[in-house]
Amino acid sequence: MPESIIHAYAALAAKAPLQPFTYNPGPLGAHEVEVKVTHCGICHSDIAMIDNDWQFSTYPLVPGHEAIGLISALGSDVQGLQLGQRVGVGWQNGSCGVCEYCRGGQEAFCAKETATIAGHFGGFASHVRVQAPFAIAIPDGLDSADAAPLQCAGTTVFTPMLHYGVKPNWKTAVVGIGGLGHLALQYLAHLGTDVTAISSTHNKDAEARSFGATRVIATQGTDELKKAANSFDFILSTASGTGVDFPLLLEALRPGGTLCVTAPPEATISLSAMALLAKEKRVVGGRTGSPTDTAKMLEFTARHGIKPKLNRFKMADVNAAVDLVRSGKARYRVVLET
Amino acid sequence: MPESIIHAYAALAAKAPLQPFTYNPGPLGAHEVEVKVTHCGICHSDIAMIDNDWQFSTYPLVPGHEAIGLISALGSDVQGLQLGQRVGVGWQNGSCGVCEYCRGGQEAFCAKETATIAGHFGGFASHVRVQAPFAIAIPDGLDSADAAPLQCAGTTVFTPMLHYGVKPNWKTAVVGIGGLGHLALQYLAHLGTDVTAISSTHNKDAEARSFGATRVIATQGTDELKKAANSFDFILSTASGTGVDFPLLLEALRPGGTLCVTAPPEATISLSAMALLAKEKRVVGGRTGSPTDTAKMLEFTARHGIKPKLNRFKMADVNAAVDLVRSGKARYRVVLET
Repeated sequence: MPESIIHAYAALAAKAPLQPFTYNPGPLGAHEVEVKVTHCGICHSDIAMIDNDWQFSTYPLVPGHEAIGLISALGSDVQGLQLGQRVGVGWQNGSCGVCEYCRGGQEAFCAKETATIAGHFGGFASHVRVQAPFAIAIPDGLDSADAAPLQCAGTTVFTPMLHYGVKPNWKTAVVGIGGLGHLALQYLAHLGTDVTAISSTHNKDAEARSFGATRVIATQGTDELKKAANSFDFILSTASGTGVDFPLLLEALRPGGTLCVTAPPEATISLSAMALLAKEKRVVGGRTGSPTDTAKMLEFTARHGIKPKLNRFKMADVNAAVDLVRSGKARYRVVLET
Repeated sequence: MPESIIHAYAALAAKAPLQPFTYNPGPLGAHEVEVKVTHCGICHSDIAMIDNDWQFSTYPLVPGHEAIGLISALGSDVQGLQLGQRVGVGWQNGSCGVCEYCRGGQEAFCAKETATIAGHFGGFASHVRVQAPFAIAIPDGLDSADAAPLQCAGTTVFTPMLHYGVKPNWKTAVVGIGGLGHLALQYLAHLGTDVTAISSTHNKDAEARSFGATRVIATQGTDELKKAANSFDFILSTASGTGVDFPLLLEALRPGGTLCVTAPPEATISLSAMALLAKEKRVVGGRTGSPTDTAKMLEFTARHGIKPKLNRFKMADVNAAVDLVRSGKARYRVVLET
């Protein structure tokens, strides 16, 4: 039976601390599943939504879009999923199901895309609901706490590698050694590429190397990035903040190279057309995957033993956990446990 | 025997009118061919080079990088080409021949790329020289005057369609109905796509439709482009001038869509990262192809009966022809005939 009362943590206004909040989710939709949450990651997007940075938050706002749990109720029309099955819930929780994108495994492109924490209550809660196609089976080899950050951070960095066709002989780079970046380094190393970490300082060099980087470039007060002109076939920008020098990253691309921006979404990217066209360079957007992308990421992650590095908190300590993410000092990803 | 004196037209200083100019080309390199020019197109890049817009012109400057002619001399080591064979010469006239790009049919990416009219005398001349791999055989079905503008304009618009994988079911658009744009419309129509022309006004509607456009969007003082949000899988920007609204073009892309910039090279493109990443959009550079790209373009052009629309001038009237290109009023491409 679906729950009649869900216990959650909500912000009641922009930038407010989270507080206990209960709601009645109403009847379970025929195509929905309800997931009893065991773990939920905290993403920078949760903070942006709490703070209404993107101007589409509604309150009360229950964050949480990196949830792992067990299916506790199935809608009447759901097939292929079972009660008690372990699944993950990410940024997207629904789509139309019938457009060319939904039919083609590209639900992230659906114009009717809905999000777990926008106009819907998320995973900082006892339970969370999701349309059945967006409940993604978790491979047995993955620990639930490890699997949580993969639902957004993991699929956000892995999906562009799939979509932009990263090849094993490529020279690659990751900008930002944080929640996304520390996973991206691991994926690019396990995809067979020679991966460089690009960070503001050399403070995280040893850790970057432990994630698979063969080299670290520091950007703050050095000319290391300038000297790396013409070096990379693929650069993934995962940095938060606004200090990213996109023209210099474009110079760091090899001919035909791709600069993929997954973060920061707030950035304005100003580029010279000549710098793009002279050697056919590409500046592209990367975002969380569709369910089939996420499933591929999970399978790859489990098979290669890739793991996020976690700070663990009890769900009841959610405000301390949020503060740690907000401070930018989490190394590297924060997970709440119920 | 190679020529000992080549009769050409040269600018002796930036922005100067062209004047008769003879030079001794010296011995023909072992890997070079000499081409007796019969036709040469005029490209906006010739004007930019005459004017030193890109700051790497050297004078005397002999423009001309859309040359068609007959091979009049072969270097001692040249194989696979014959005296009297009809060939074309485009923007690039040489490369190292041994790097990964040259070996892979991507000579345009070679770091040692040389250009026909930069530090070398071009095709506004009785003869022009080129490294053998950059003398491209012209298919029998193509008229030499028609083939001339294909050497730069044709390959500049067709190559990105190949490299970015334009598909027949795509909705496409071309920005700018000029020398490049009027060819791009024809290629995109013959590739099977539904192609829209985007122009500043509706003055060229009938001609745009004759080139294959099913629809024309005018940008000046209208909201037609704004209303076309989410319409195109591929937009090719060929416009000269600086009036192109790149953020609005990005909005006009469908999810996963590609905005390819071939012109204007002088533009600065300012984009929001969120607009790129939310639906995985791509902003990419397009440029003249490598020899294998150009050969594919020529074969496709001949087979589909695609033709540039020409203003023809005698080579001796080169300054009048240059003035027409400079005025932006050529409809649509200017060719010199010897």
